[in-house]
Amino acid sequence: MKPFGTVHLVGAGPGDPDLLTLRAARLIGQAEVVVHDRLVSREILDLVGPGVRMVPVGKAPGAHSVTQDRINDILVALAQSGLMVVRLKGGDPLIFGRGSEEAAVLRAAGVPVQIVPGITAAQGTAAATGVPLTHRGLATGVRYVTGHCQRNAPLDLDWHGLADPKTTLVVYMGVAHIAEIARSLICAGMPFDLPVMAVANATTPTERRLVTRLDRVGLEIQRWPKNGPVLFVIGHVVSLLEVAAPGEMLPESLVRPATTEPVHV
Amino acid sequence: MKPFGTVHLVGAGPGDPDLLTLRAARLIGQAEVVVHDRLVSREILDLVGPGVRMVPVGKAPGAHSVTQDRINDILVALAQSGLMVVRLKGGDPLIFGRGSEEAAVLRAAGVPVQIVPGITAAQGTAAATGVPLTHRGLATGVRYVTGHCQRNAPLDLDWHGLADPKTTLVVYMGVAHIAEIARSLICAGMPFDLPVMAVANATTPTERRLVTRLDRVGLEIQRWPKNGPVLFVIGHVVSLLEVAAPGEMLPESLVRPATTEPVHV
Repeated sequence: MKPFGTVHLVGAGPGDPDLLTLRAARLIGQAEVVVHDRLVSREILDLVGPGVRMVPVGKAPGAHSVTQDRINDILVALAQSGLMVVRLKGGDPLIFGRGSEEAAVLRAAGVPVQIVPGITAAQGTAAATGVPLTHRGLATGVRYVTGHCQRNAPLDLDWHGLADPKTTLVVYMGVAHIAEIARSLICAGMPFDLPVMAVANATTPTERRLVTRLDRVGLEIQRWPKNGPVLFVIGHVVSLLEVAAPGEMLPESLVRPATTEPVHV
Repeated sequence: MKPFGTVHLVGAGPGDPDLLTLRAARLIGQAEVVVHDRLVSREILDLVGPGVRMVPVGKAPGAHSVTQDRINDILVALAQSGLMVVRLKGGDPLIFGRGSEEAAVLRAAGVPVQIVPGITAAQGTAAATGVPLTHRGLATGVRYVTGHCQRNAPLDLDWHGLADPKTTLVVYMGVAHIAEIARSLICAGMPFDLPVMAVANATTPTERRLVTRLDRVGLEIQRWPKNGPVLFVIGHVVSLLEVAAPGEMLPESLVRPATTEPVHV
């Protein structure tokens, strides 16, 4: 019997293929089969060798085309057939990536698993905009939460714990609920005029930014097109966008100064 | 007059050179001068081309051999002399890295700045141990704080906000104050038996792990040697260490099962 292949749970980073780790890039080039999310960019998928089998298992919001159980089954079956599998996930597999769930299923089936971290969207957004996640005097720490919740379930977040203006708050998958999140944060004591930056498709040529404040972000975000992942950075660090010369990782500058008026770029 | 050189603020990641981004590795190879922290690993510094000027500006805890002002001056002077400068920092330059402070000084001096993110220690530790930073049912988010404070100043942290057992808490630079941090968290309502993992030199051949619980970590950590950076991961996700087969990114397995008894590996 052929020995089981290894499944590599690989973080694809925020979108720019240049932000893959050396290990991730090498494994993508060596893969015999690539199982990938919807959020992995075209440019990164182009690094996969010719003739390699590609298995898209992307989950669109509200339309779970492939369930997690089905993804787990696919990974186990591919590894049991002896193939070297790269399971490619946007960002980092262990930050809102369900990497640990897949790893547990694979290990229970006797499949060897390796995990390769990736630059998470918060870091890609920070580097692309120059807005840091921590900064002396503005943010003593940073916190990542998800604004996504099970269908029809209320958001289960500790609003009073989150309402700390000295901690940068980064909201992943928050487009659908950002108005409710902002309202809850303000009710819990967060300043209504705290700066907020929304960034879509960070580190890619289609990057877009919105700079606004907490009490307006829910309204402003409605005017945005609804494609591509959006990350929200909430906190005083956003005020540094004016100091930073943004667009540094992009072919052209998309800069607008930070202001209390909403700015669409 | 020669035009100013660009300063690239580059994240060197957690230690393993294979976890550099493609962009970081390329810039390190192209640098005309490299200004680096104490925490950047030997293996990564070995990627710098022969004959390239190296400027170590490491700050040891309690012994600030090179002040931040002096580092800023060095960077400005090197760029003004027309050199392509790589400013290499452990982890990510915008997470406890003071990258945004250096960027602001450089831009004020008219020096072009580029920022390249890096895998932060929390991510390297997670991938190396298999302990995720978020996990459905165990952690809805993750928070990074620093346990470092100005000499003799008390830790200025929002303990009640931090005492959320549903958020993974990662403490950077916390060795000196972890006993006080643990005590304050327990006083603020965090379960005394919450699992804690301390990892030194994560992703490198000298990685060491301690698995214990919140009420014991302060005592247990005292038996550790005091060299190399230590990261603390506090939360229910640490219980997954037993499920995960750790040591995956290391040449040899350092695994011990998660337990309420402290384990030194």
